[in-house]
Amino acid sequence: MKILVINPNSSKEMTAHLERVLNQIKGDHTELTVTCPEGGPLAIESAYDEGMCFPGVMDLVLKAKDQNYDAIILACFSDPGLEAAREVSDCLVLGIEETSMHVAAMMGSAFTVLTMTDKRVPSKLSHVRRFKMEGACASVRPLGMSVAEIEANEERACAQILDVAGRAAKEDGAEVVLLGCAGMAGYAERVEQELGMTVIDPSSVTLKVAEALVDAGIKQSKRGLYSVPPVLQRKE
Amino acid sequence: MKILVINPNSSKEMTAHLERVLNQIKGDHTELTVTCPEGGPLAIESAYDEGMCFPGVMDLVLKAKDQNYDAIILACFSDPGLEAAREVSDCLVLGIEETSMHVAAMMGSAFTVLTMTDKRVPSKLSHVRRFKMEGACASVRPLGMSVAEIEANEERACAQILDVAGRAAKEDGAEVVLLGCAGMAGYAERVEQELGMTVIDPSSVTLKVAEALVDAGIKQSKRGLYSVPPVLQRKE
Amino acid sequence: MKILVINPNSSKEMTAHLERVLNQIKGDHTELTVTCPEGGPLAIESAYDEGMCFPGVMDLVLKAKDQNYDAIILACFSDPGLEAAREVSDCLVLGIEETSMHVAAMMGSAFTVLTMTDKRVPSKLSHVRRFKMEGACASVRPLGMSVAEIEANEERACAQILDVAGRAAKEDGAEVVLLGCAGMAGYAERVEQELGMTVIDPSSVTLKVAEALVDAGIKQSKRGLYSVPPVLQRKE
Amino acid sequence: MKILVINPNSSKEMTAHLERVLNQIKGDHTELTVTCPEGGPLAIESAYDEGMCFPGVMDLVLKAKDQNYDAIILACFSDPGLEAAREVSDCLVLGIEETSMHVAAMMGSAFTVLTMTDKRVPSKLSHVRRFKMEGACASVRPLGMSVAEIEANEERACAQILDVAGRAAKEDGAEVVLLGCAGMAGYAERVEQELGMTVIDPSSVTLKVAEALVDAGIKQSKRGLYSVPPVLQRKE
Amino acid sequence: MKILVINPNSSKEMTAHLERVLNQIKGDHTELTVTCPEGGPLAIESAYDEGMCFPGVMDLVLKAKDQNYDAIILACFSDPGLEAAREVSDCLVLGIEETSMHVAAMMGSAFTVLTMTDKRVPSKLSHVRRFKMEGACASVRPLGMSVAEIEANEERACAQILDVAGRAAKEDGAEVVLLGCAGMAGYAERVEQELGMTVIDPSSVTLKVAEALVDAGIKQSKRGLYSVPPVLQRKE
Amino acid sequence: MKILVINPNSSKEMTAHLERVLNQIKGDHTELTVTCPEGGPLAIESAYDEGMCFPGVMDLVLKAKDQNYDAIILACFSDPGLEAAREVSDCLVLGIEETSMHVAAMMGSAFTVLTMTDKRVPSKLSHVRRFKMEGACASVRPLGMSVAEIEANEERACAQILDVAGRAAKEDGAEVVLLGCAGMAGYAERVEQELGMTVIDPSSVTLKVAEALVDAGIKQSKRGLYSVPPVLQRKE
Repeated sequence: MKILVINPNSSKEMTAHLERVLNQIKGDHTELTVTCPEGGPLAIESAYDEGMCFPGVMDLVLKAKDQNYDAIILACFSDPGLEAAREVSDCLVLGIEETSMHVAAMMGSAFTVLTMTDKRVPSKLSHVRRFKMEGACASVRPLGMSVAEIEANEERACAQILDVAGRAAKEDGAEVVLLGCAGMAGYAERVEQELGMTVIDPSSVTLKVAEALVDAGIKQSKRGLYSVPPVLQRKE
Repeated sequence: MKILVINPNSSKEMTAHLERVLNQIKGDHTELTVTCPEGGPLAIESAYDEGMCFPGVMDLVLKAKDQNYDAIILACFSDPGLEAAREVSDCLVLGIEETSMHVAAMMGSAFTVLTMTDKRVPSKLSHVRRFKMEGACASVRPLGMSVAEIEANEERACAQILDVAGRAAKEDGAEVVLLGCAGMAGYAERVEQELGMTVIDPSSVTLKVAEALVDAGIKQSKRGLYSVPPVLQRKE
Repeated sequence: MKILVINPNSSKEMTAHLERVLNQIKGDHTELTVTCPEGGPLAIESAYDEGMCFPGVMDLVLKAKDQNYDAIILACFSDPGLEAAREVSDCLVLGIEETSMHVAAMMGSAFTVLTMTDKRVPSKLSHVRRFKMEGACASVRPLGMSVAEIEANEERACAQILDVAGRAAKEDGAEVVLLGCAGMAGYAERVEQELGMTVIDPSSVTLKVAEALVDAGIKQSKRGLYSVPPVLQRKE
Repeated sequence: MKILVINPNSSKEMTAHLERVLNQIKGDHTELTVTCPEGGPLAIESAYDEGMCFPGVMDLVLKAKDQNYDAIILACFSDPGLEAAREVSDCLVLGIEETSMHVAAMMGSAFTVLTMTDKRVPSKLSHVRRFKMEGACASVRPLGMSVAEIEANEERACAQILDVAGRAAKEDGAEVVLLGCAGMAGYAERVEQELGMTVIDPSSVTLKVAEALVDAGIKQSKRGLYSVPPVLQRKE
Repeated sequence: MKILVINPNSSKEMTAHLERVLNQIKGDHTELTVTCPEGGPLAIESAYDEGMCFPGVMDLVLKAKDQNYDAIILACFSDPGLEAAREVSDCLVLGIEETSMHVAAMMGSAFTVLTMTDKRVPSKLSHVRRFKMEGACASVRPLGMSVAEIEANEERACAQILDVAGRAAKEDGAEVVLLGCAGMAGYAERVEQELGMTVIDPSSVTLKVAEALVDAGIKQSKRGLYSVPPVLQRKE
Repeated sequence: MKILVINPNSSKEMTAHLERVLNQIKGDHTELTVTCPEGGPLAIESAYDEGMCFPGVMDLVLKAKDQNYDAIILACFSDPGLEAAREVSDCLVLGIEETSMHVAAMMGSAFTVLTMTDKRVPSKLSHVRRFKMEGACASVRPLGMSVAEIEANEERACAQILDVAGRAAKEDGAEVVLLGCAGMAGYAERVEQELGMTVIDPSSVTLKVAEALVDAGIKQSKRGLYSVPPVLQRKE
């Protein structure tokens, strides 16, 4: 099967990293294309960034239409453009935030979302509501470190992740951790071993779920919420 | 006070109509600018349209920053870009969908949203959730007529509006009607008289509420959800 | 327009203070009457007080019927008699608790309500539910000082308000503060400056919203929840 | 044990009827007093009526304080003054609306509330919310007959009750019927036999639950929501 | 009336203790049988235990069918088999967890559930949801002591109970305490006196409520959720 | 990878059918074992049946522990024993009801569950709540035909399925159909083509999701809700 993974920000470095990670886990029969738009935001850190990356992402989604993709994955943990991509596509479209929240909900009584800074916490909470997952979300917790800081000081990063996840477990009742930002995937094993929590790397699990749904012949209904936009119908 | 009203679609005709309507109701001390972006979608009928109008809307919002506006109103009944506009602005930003839902919630036990077609119903329901108004929303009902059809046959339009609003009252328990699409404002009085329902025209009420909040010195908190996007902070 | 503001408690001092504050912010065309019932409770500190002030408040509301008021405001942060006042009135009726909660919900991801003592917290929480605002309310926090104590020691009061609001922001995720008790309005600016939170003085904002809705021609639906009480219909 | 039942309206006829019904079902050791206030509303049909009966009800509740009652029951299916009666009383206070909703929630997957007229439906829905029973309430359905009409035409009344309860079962999924108005108790058996629904007469079941809780030594907590009103504390 | 109380675990000691406690509080006309299954789990500490006790409990419930019981009580604070027991029985069936949650909801603004260990907290929270009581539940708190430890050190147990209940009051807003595990009933009075909280012993209150509902002629509806299992219908 | 699929009822015929269906869709590297308990209920049609199949299912789950399974699937659309199976297992455990609800929630604005008879509707609704999916579930609709009737009259069955799914779409806003009972899988294509709805066969999609999660290294957290039952810990 053919799967297109779109990194909504325009960082070629992050896109290349994503490609390496996903190629290690993809199925034998999966032909993977990992790409990103030209000229949009370098990072998605606000509603403003989410909106500004939209035209570039949509351009890639629309170009994909005559290339026989079986699924498209939006690989940014705020799923910018997810609804629109489902409207304009005939194939399955998944976002890594929504997909990993649903998986997390099944793996324990409640999950916590780790995000970079405290400024992003209310935005993540609004996404929990957007995906109707209030019942399964214990909390959103900021890590309080930037990607640069994580990379610069691995020991401190590891201690910080264990501390924040541990407080989510003790104070919020979280049993599952969603890694809502890059740079943290390497510490999953320690969190699982020391805290007994299930750790979910959103991109990886979404690729596997996408393969699963393609094999099961399932894609979004085009009946209402994701029906083809009238402006595109008129063009056809 | 200075208020900027942005019609997110690029229809100059609709923008001119909006300007006429709002100038009739604006306060004595209000200096009103009504505008629309160049080159975006002519109508907002899908999540795709909502995303595609974003850069043009945001361009207007950013340009407004050094023009001393007291408030900005996004005048499309799906509030595209509302969160981002609040992030990038120092002044009050209101959307007509969110504002009119809050007013509607106070005017009766529950409100119904009238929208154009049944395809838009699930999208409107997701907006009810986005604004945390599930408790006050009785239903979303499609009118089943296009703007063109409404204009072409006023008698049938009036009968249809009365019929749909009446069923929302009887079957869903709605007591307030939100006019979620253009072309219907002229029939408000008949609905109020015949059905005893309160009818809300979102643009008008939002302009008045904007004036009220400016006078009261209230605008969105910049502490978290609407904090300045890092990408703009770095530019400053 | 003519607006009647009813202070549900019978404190003439508080009524006079309210009159001064509201006259500073009222619109040019607004004719304001601020009054209170004779002989009811001097303060509203319990469900018992809320009920005991009812006949006096209702007496004022009913007498207002042939005086051409455009709106009536119940100016006590527990909105005693709001539903009944809407039933018996033909003009718009607003309560300051309900109105300011709706405004607060638009100004940030979540609001906190500051109340006098911890005994009042559960009652305020039940009001959040009464107005269907659970989704937007982060917390109710007691100030732990009486009005007398606030007035006697301004420095300590200011420190205490900053401390409680700050904890609501950090621990509960509040971005907006509703001043649910008198005596605190003077400290709003400091809270806004030091904490980046939006502070809402319920009486002031409700007066402005009342003016806005009167101008927009909006009042409560009389179809169901607020229909005229049968006992009054029979009298007519 | 001593139980005081207060009929919040001032109809002596209805109070006498209530006394007869409750005396048939009361426990051997229960000493029952059934009373009503002087001079309040003759019927409780609106929020206005609920407020107007408050001082009379509260007068009876306060007078009961030195008469060693073990429990007080407010016997009107809108529980007017329930919160205040709990504040001012040292003994258990129950309302028939709240108590019967909790019993109903245990007897089937969801309950319907039968009320007199469609005007009262939104008010009953707000009471479902007041008692946090949204999850267990399938619907509120109006009977569409007055007490007088029920008494005048028993056959039509029975048919109507069966019809409305049957539609609540088929269309709303109700399995339990709360008789939210007087005059209908006599038809319970037919509803149970023909529809397989459990029918609950609020006054009767509340008397029995009150006896049960007195025997179990349970009454409302005085810690917060129902703490003694400061105005009464100062008097003591 | 005849009431059958089933202790779902197979501890004869605990069953005998339960019998003593309930006989002290039962009504004069109540004929009480307290029993437990043979050979099931000795304690109910997991979903696994809840399932493993099911056949033994159901055996007792089915055997009770031709013995004219008026009510059956499942006396384990996780109500294992409650839905099934209601399906197969013609008489009233109550569970102590569900019943005491409904009583607790009426006695204060919110209740806390005390449970043995922190491992059981998420399970109790899922039961709160099962019984649709999220709105009334402030928290579930672990005691952090085993039954053996409670019995071995009464002083420490009492201090611990006061500490945990006190924190539930102060930090979670709880006003009512549900004793979700055995061994704690003896400390109820101290909690009530020192903290002003209402303490509920689930078995005792459920017996009294069962007597009340039998007297009121109320039992579960057999129309849908609790209809007779087809496998048993075919046997009849 | 090794996956164990347990059909909780003891019908060898249904188990053999399940094995055929799942073998057609399983991954190349998946070694599949499909089995059922001896001597439990032949069909799962009530809470009683769900409980009675528990010991047999749990016996299979426990025996699987030293056979190196990577995942266990409970293949009955009421997920009996799901929580307990997760407690006692070290490997991933999925239920087809929970898993397919999460997939359905992503494929459209809301899903409907088709079930056999109207008696099962309230039970399915309680499962929607058990899995915290109220926000995504539009309705549960009974087919009103038994498996035997479906097999006996294919044409009528197809018409009935189209009719019920179509009403769920039009009246409830459903866009996705969960086939909550056997015998209907063959009609999925017609529903998709004629109604534009996404149809989900729970067993198939769960097998694929199980393979996906095993590949992604994800299984349930053993920290709290699914921690090992103390009775089994003591045995170890």
